[in-house]
Amino acid sequence: MTPNTILDIVKECDNFIYYADNPTEYITTLQTHYYAFKVSNCASILGYIPASLIPQIPWNPETWHIDHESHTVTLTAPPPATNRSRLLEQTLREVGPQISLLRGWRNETFPVYGPSQGEVLLEIERCASALFGIVTYGVQLLCYERGRPAATIITRECPSDEAASASGGGNSHPIKLWIARRSSSKQTYPGMLDCTAAGGLPTGKSPLEGVIAEALEEASLPESLVRTRLRATGCVSYFHVRGPKAGGETGLLQPEVEYTYEMELGGAVRPSPSDEEVEEFRLWEVEEVLDALRRGEFKPNSAVVVVDFLIRHGLLTAENERDYVHILPRLHRRLEFPLCIYR
Amino acid sequence: MTPNTILDIVKECDNFIYYADNPTEYITTLQTHYYAFKVSNCASILGYIPASLIPQIPWNPETWHIDHESHTVTLTAPPPATNRSRLLEQTLREVGPQISLLRGWRNETFPVYGPSQGEVLLEIERCASALFGIVTYGVQLLCYERGRPAATIITRECPSDEAASASGGGNSHPIKLWIARRSSSKQTYPGMLDCTAAGGLPTGKSPLEGVIAEALEEASLPESLVRTRLRATGCVSYFHVRGPKAGGETGLLQPEVEYTYEMELGGAVRPSPSDEEVEEFRLWEVEEVLDALRRGEFKPNSAVVVVDFLIRHGLLTAENERDYVHILPRLHRRLEFPLCIYR
Repeated sequence: MTPNTILDIVKECDNFIYYADNPTEYITTLQTHYYAFKVSNCASILGYIPASLIPQIPWNPETWHIDHESHTVTLTAPPPATNRSRLLEQTLREVGPQISLLRGWRNETFPVYGPSQGEVLLEIERCASALFGIVTYGVQLLCYERGRPAATIITRECPSDEAASASGGGNSHPIKLWIARRSSSKQTYPGMLDCTAAGGLPTGKSPLEGVIAEALEEASLPESLVRTRLRATGCVSYFHVRGPKAGGETGLLQPEVEYTYEMELGGAVRPSPSDEEVEEFRLWEVEEVLDALRRGEFKPNSAVVVVDFLIRHGLLTAENERDYVHILPRLHRRLEFPLCIYR
Repeated sequence: MTPNTILDIVKECDNFIYYADNPTEYITTLQTHYYAFKVSNCASILGYIPASLIPQIPWNPETWHIDHESHTVTLTAPPPATNRSRLLEQTLREVGPQISLLRGWRNETFPVYGPSQGEVLLEIERCASALFGIVTYGVQLLCYERGRPAATIITRECPSDEAASASGGGNSHPIKLWIARRSSSKQTYPGMLDCTAAGGLPTGKSPLEGVIAEALEEASLPESLVRTRLRATGCVSYFHVRGPKAGGETGLLQPEVEYTYEMELGGAVRPSPSDEEVEEFRLWEVEEVLDALRRGEFKPNSAVVVVDFLIRHGLLTAENERDYVHILPRLHRRLEFPLCIYR
């Protein structure tokens, strides 16, 4: 397989068509293959449900209005959010085993935000979020080290001293990244490469609380260390169409916002697996990371976080990456849905 | 005046309407108030010229085709780029004194890129770029320091010790920024606040060459220092409509890409004015910077670079900035024009 460009990798994550690139295809795709998801008395489209799934969900007419003409699914249940959430859950519980994603029920919900001032309109069971194509939020943490003199960098994980080849963007010590390999038994993206720790943000958890929890659960990094060293660096956003590597249904729309964090480690501190999610952590040279990115070995939304890191640290630059100015807007797509506002 | 939110500040720079927010207004605005700028045998729109300027430019019919029906200005001169550039310059030289921007002729050109593989279609005199609404490129450098213990931070510029109030995002030492004030005699944005050094990228200059030159010319920072400490951190992009603060014609469209750089300083090294462009440099607390941003004291495209810096360094976070997830996409707008590709 021909190695991909970095822009190709980013496009694999942000792979829903842009209106400006082909207005007709954009509109036809959404109107033909999807039903818009709405709640009554709110004009905003909150997500998109694949048309193929509509007949498989038992829409109770007391709770739902399905308009096959305009391709719209409206939750007609009145507020408060708890009422809407309860009725949505009831519907999902009645879905048969034919929708495989719902077999991964987690008893954890994601919030769905409305258009004014970040109010939560309803909550939805996590495993169902992709079916409804709502915007979901997550956190991603990348830990890194700055290379030390040759004598000290010889470890089991990184026995050779090729580190010097990667320039650390204005720093004399080359950067290395703590990359995780996902367990081969994971339901989604088994065996693929990942950031150091990552996870979805369920209802009520702030991004900071989320990243602290994931760092501990996935990488055994204690809260006290994380609170001292963590740096928030922004967020990436993209509009993903779920492909076959993900496992489960394909063609689902997944507009996502991932809050990004980084943390410099060194000395004896290192991430280590603490649950079944991660197979191994290894300290990777930047060149190794770039090769793995190009070969498509990273989970798509981890790849974009790594690319964002490499740009932020001056390791991908306007001079060494031809598509530089095309990459950054695709890492920060403006999602045409109501989004989270923190109050 | 009510202080603005950070999102308001970003919207003042990225102030051209989005298609998705109002498709009708977007299309009407471009089709009524502007003429699309094209070259023959290339389908891409390269920029937009205000309709009000069309009668003021002596379009030689041997070089130009003006279609008042479709609101299109086409440079019909054949390639190579040098030929197109020469004929465009000839036209601009014949414009009378009624277009004030052209009085600032600089004998420096900006490249205009085509849609395939970053070929340069033509070059355009720098002061005319905004008239044609083409995408321009620039560099912005922010220098910063990490606060030191109280005893050493007492300088003429920063006599008090309130630095500790600003948290440096995972670093125990608070960050301070080297902010420039533009000379009150500057043609554009006189007296406003700026990054440490910035400038446009004329034809043939790489972003790295550009930032090294600007750091020396505007801030007296020697090349050897910059080459060692500089870190490339990405680029911001936005679609600006020129307002009255800029000086000169208003309503001009300015889609721009600014390559961003940062550099940590400390000790005796500090920026100092070396030409008439900058009135003074001062080391600012983060809280002071935020206040000045909210009061609208920064030049619009310097403000967005500062906001990007504050996010990257964990000083604006999801928890302390309510519009966090709305800000980042507007700092990285996808511009619907052919863009630079480095080869």
